[in-house]
Amino acid sequence: MKRGLRLEPIGVVRSRFKEPADLPPPAFAPRGFFERSLGTVEVRPEFAAGLDRIEDYSHIVVLFHFHRAGYAKLRVTPPGQKKERGVFASRSPHRPNPLGMSVLKLLRRDGRVLHVSGLDLVDGTPVLDIKPYTQRDRKSRIRTADSKKTARPAR
Amino acid sequence: MKRGLRLEPIGVVRSRFKEPADLPPPAFAPRGFFERSLGTVEVRPEFAAGLDRIEDYSHIVVLFHFHRAGYAKLRVTPPGQKKERGVFASRSPHRPNPLGMSVLKLLRRDGRVLHVSGLDLVDGTPVLDIKPYTQRDRKSRIRTADSKKTARPAR
Repeated sequence: MKRGLRLEPIGVVRSRFKEPADLPPPAFAPRGFFERSLGTVEVRPEFAAGLDRIEDYSHIVVLFHFHRAGYAKLRVTPPGQKKERGVFASRSPHRPNPLGMSVLKLLRRDGRVLHVSGLDLVDGTPVLDIKPYTQRDRKSRIRTADSKKTARPAR
Repeated sequence: MKRGLRLEPIGVVRSRFKEPADLPPPAFAPRGFFERSLGTVEVRPEFAAGLDRIEDYSHIVVLFHFHRAGYAKLRVTPPGQKKERGVFASRSPHRPNPLGMSVLKLLRRDGRVLHVSGLDLVDGTPVLDIKPYTQRDRKSRIRTADSKKTARPAR
């Protein structure tokens, strides 16, 4: 990677969120909003064999390109927070490398189409990689900034 | 991303695992092996401001380049398993886009150096992104292939 790493999409997200503005920031989404959010990940035909036996897993990690993010920042103020923080201490799309990561529930596979819930991505998002979500990704007793400081709107 | 996405490292991993062969496959590692594995993620000076307030989080998601992976495959046989599976149903490094994801415990920050445990990466691994690990990444009641089928060696 001396001169950088070049990536090509292996698939695309299909979602009812057509624009970034259609997606509520997680801190402002109604409880369970994203858990109920359905959509698909469509893998390109030439990579379909890579999905074999993915149904053994209940959840998948999707790595994607924040293709609508625009320019990168080093400091951001996440929605619902008052103080700036480093972009690596946030899930902002405005990252030096515009990579995103979402853990989605795999409802079923239909050939090279994965039906998922938990979808928090815009329609047309280029998918770079899919991985099974394993026990080692599931950390207990975690501490987050959000748990202390996020201002949730009154409902 | 019509013509691909080009990424540059924002940092590097420092680890006692100097070669891929020094890393046991997760299925064959002694219990707690990786939890005890210490190392650092060193962020480049020009990106150091992006780490501001990352200490609010106990765990981080590190996205990295599998820079020692060699050629890509669509089907793999993970260590300790008998049957082939699709590469997207495995954590193999031999991926169409050689991206890796590890969740590490953040022990402390020393300027632009993050001291971590849970390290399962080779020394010199190029780091592409760092994200805080949040409640939404922590799924309960998951099902995995490993939990049913991985042959653990006798100890």
